[in-house]
This record gives sequence, structure tokens and C-alpha cells, in this order.
Amino acid sequence: MTDTPERPSKSHGRLSISASRAPRDLMGDSPRLAHAWTAKIVTLFPEAFPGVLGLSLTGRALAEGKWALETLPLRAYGKGRHRNVDDTPAGGGAGMVLRADVVAEALEEAAQGTPHDRGQWPVLYASPRGRPFDQAMARRLAAGRGLTLLCGRFEGVDERVLEAFEVEEVSLGDFVLTGGEIAAQAMLDAIVRLLPGVLGNEASAEEESHSNGLLEHPQYTKPAEWRGRSIPEVLLSGHHGRIEAWRREMSEKLTQERRPDLWKKR
Amino acid sequence: MTDTPERPSKSHGRLSISASRAPRDLMGDSPRLAHAWTAKIVTLFPEAFPGVLGLSLTGRALAEGKWALETLPLRAYGKGRHRNVDDTPAGGGAGMVLRADVVAEALEEAAQGTPHDRGQWPVLYASPRGRPFDQAMARRLAAGRGLTLLCGRFEGVDERVLEAFEVEEVSLGDFVLTGGEIAAQAMLDAIVRLLPGVLGNEASAEEESHSNGLLEHPQYTKPAEWRGRSIPEVLLSGHHGRIEAWRREMSEKLTQERRPDLWKKR
Repeated sequence: MTDTPERPSKSHGRLSISASRAPRDLMGDSPRLAHAWTAKIVTLFPEAFPGVLGLSLTGRALAEGKWALETLPLRAYGKGRHRNVDDTPAGGGAGMVLRADVVAEALEEAAQGTPHDRGQWPVLYASPRGRPFDQAMARRLAAGRGLTLLCGRFEGVDERVLEAFEVEEVSLGDFVLTGGEIAAQAMLDAIVRLLPGVLGNEASAEEESHSNGLLEHPQYTKPAEWRGRSIPEVLLSGHHGRIEAWRREMSEKLTQERRPDLWKKR
Repeated sequence: MTDTPERPSKSHGRLSISASRAPRDLMGDSPRLAHAWTAKIVTLFPEAFPGVLGLSLTGRALAEGKWALETLPLRAYGKGRHRNVDDTPAGGGAGMVLRADVVAEALEEAAQGTPHDRGQWPVLYASPRGRPFDQAMARRLAAGRGLTLLCGRFEGVDERVLEAFEVEEVSLGDFVLTGGEIAAQAMLDAIVRLLPGVLGNEASAEEESHSNGLLEHPQYTKPAEWRGRSIPEVLLSGHHGRIEAWRREMSEKLTQERRPDLWKKR
């Protein structure tokens, strides 16, 4: 069974099986900066990109060349007349497994022009078996020159290609997704907003949840009174020290209540 | 500062500020089943949906009416000539906060025709302050009749509307995203594939990672020999008992090595 898209995105057109194997630069007409941080995505659904990443902050940064995105359509590396990318699991069982030889060719093409050092250019596979993705990992990946990310489908990927290419398995969380494409977009969003010049307001990144290991304090805005509920008085006091202290206290209280695991790690 | 999309998806067109306030059924011409599980998404970026959810398994299920998706464009509930949805945080600080009154109107419209009981129809807000989303939560949400999901942007949402509407905060993980749209898509993907009739092969859902609290064992497929690497012999033995035992052992070993936290929870 091969999982073909039923409703390809109209904005990119259906990928034909004679698709070019050359990586597609999704913003080819953009003022791409020399050495911009680059994501290379190996996927059966190149039409899923940039997706949400093409909107808002990340979309603006992509258009401005502050980062770059290339997709490598896995189907183009498939075997035989039907460009098969998967086969049945050795030893039996449900589902299909992506072939080592097919994935290897895509990863080799992605590796063109990238550093061999996995520290500078990690090769990731979005998989629930991986190390959980978190803000520290986002910071580490944003500090490199880019990454290659393999999006899985089916039951998984032949283990041998993961070993041979020193692929780092990264998990978005303890839940099962249909494929790696949404996980890839979540990871890229978290990474890209940490790249220099992407966030308009640098202060914002610092204050947000998880930057200091605490959950964010409650926020309020106008109107001061809404359906019988008022903004806490301290926030309207204009007294910066008291506001700061109140916010800190609320952050600590929320973290203790909701995330004792994070609280212990501080 | 209001965050407007720079590159709206071509497949849905740009949302104008005079947009209809009526929820948009993204698959209006589909054979929607009576009482199909329904997701109502309140978002500043309705063009982000269905996005990846429109492809593959989830897209096919959407087209077949096995679930339904409606977006409520938050901008349509904005205040004044510019349809403002946000304002500065009370007490000062960077960024903008979504207004309680604006969000309330969107949530009230979303509530039309849904059960009042939050157990049957939860109202979620994708936020890093929330309870971590996991497979157990996906199962709970799939067992209900649907959900309403608020996608945040900016610094957050006025706390009062979260209290007044008994909104459940759910976090995709310990990282910061630009907005809730990608988190919403990840959660919906995990939920939708658990709905009756969505996964072609029921066995597949059972065997996958996290369904039994263990990480998945390595997978292999043809060719038997690839670049000097062989498929483990036991998998080619045809002996189901030995294969099962080997897979169990590998799952346990991987879980102990990579996720001692999961291993302890068993």
C-alpha cells in the first residue's frame, strides 16, 4: 500500500512521479541571504511546505531570506516504474516501512553542499522513538547552519539507514502522528523564531514561557472590567517592582501546580 | 502591532476584514456524516487549515465526512474600524494580548449547536502553559463529539476569558511556537486517526509507539543486504514467537535507554 495524497494543496500542484530530484527552493525569487540558516525536508508530501510556516512571522522571515527551506520529494527517489518507496516489514506485521536505499539517496542529495559535521548540520528524523524536542534543542539547532529533516510515514524507516547516516531521532511528544510533516513544521517554527532578526521584539522571546524554566504568568488587557471580572489591581498600579514581583509569584505558582516536573528541574 | 499574514495561502485566498462571521465548513461539498466528530478552530489564520490535515489519511477521512473541520476567523470578531483583536498587556511588557471580549464572541459562536458539557465538547487553548498533550489525551478527545480549539498569537490571551469559558490549556510540548495553528494541527492529527474507520488497518494503531507505553522496535524491509548491513536473522526466520520476543526485547531496551521516564511509568 502506498499512501498517496488525496487532496494535494492547490498552491503547489500534484507531485508527479517523474518529478525532478533536484531540491526545490520554495522561495526561489526571494532575496536569500548568503549562508542563511537552511532546512532541507525529505518528505512524501512536499506540497505540505511551507504550510503554516509561510504565514506570519516565519513566513515574513522566509520571504526576507532570513532562513531558507528546500523540499526533497521522497517519491522521486523511489524504485521501479511505480517509484516505490516502501515495502512490507521484515518479520511481518501491519503497515509499510520506508526502504533504506530510497531514503539514502534522498539524504545523499540533501547532503550536497552541507557540512559533514553532524554538530553543524544535524540530520533528524521526526519519530515518536526520538529524544523529546524542547526549547533547549530548538536553541541548539538554531545555533547551527541548518538541518536536514526526514519526515516518516507508515510504520517507520529501515533502521539501517538511520544508523548509516547517523540520523538523530527527535520526538515532538508522546503521541502518534500520521506522518512527520506536522512535527517538522512545529520544530522549524520553534527554531526559526530564534534566528537573528526574526523576532521583531527581542524582549518577547526572553519573557515567554519556558525561556526561564517557568510557565508564563496570566496576561490581561483592556477593557479593565469585563463581564464582572476585573484586571488584578497591582497590574494597574504603575509600580514596576510590584508588578514584576506579582508576575514572578504567579509564574512560580502556576508551574508548581501544573508542571511539578518542570518545577523540580529548576 | 497587529500580525497580519504576509503570504496568505493561495488555496484559500486572503481573509478580508469584512469576512463573514459564520464558521466556514472547509469541506462543504463532502458527504459529511450526521454527528461526525467536529473540530472548530478559532484562529487569526483560517487559511492555515486544513493544511497538512488535508493530505493523506486525515485528508481522506475529512473528504469522506468521517470528521469535520470549521474555522472561525478571529479577525471577524475584532473591534472598531480596524477589527482590532489585541491590545497592550496590563502592567506593561512586550507583545500584545488577545482581548477577552473578542475571544468571547468567537467562542460563543463556536458553541452554537455544541453540548454545554465540557466533558463532551472541550474548549481548548493551545498554550505552553497547558497540560502536556499525549496519547491518552488524544484518546479522551477522540471519544467525545468534537472540540473547540483557540489558537493563540502574541503574548497570550486575557486570562478572564479562559476562566469564564472554562477553557482547558493544552501544551504541545516544552517549546515556544509563533502561534497555536501548528499545535492545533498536530493535536487534530493525533485525534482524528483514532476516530472509527479512519485508520485502514486497525492493527497498525495498536502496534505503534506509545500505544503500549513502549517505544517501537526497529523496523527493516527489503533489500535483505544493504551497503554491508543485514536484516537481523531472527526477522527472516519465519518463527513468529521468536520474532515477537525479539521485538518486545528491543522495545524494552530502547525505552530504558532513551526514555527512562516512560519506563518508570509502566
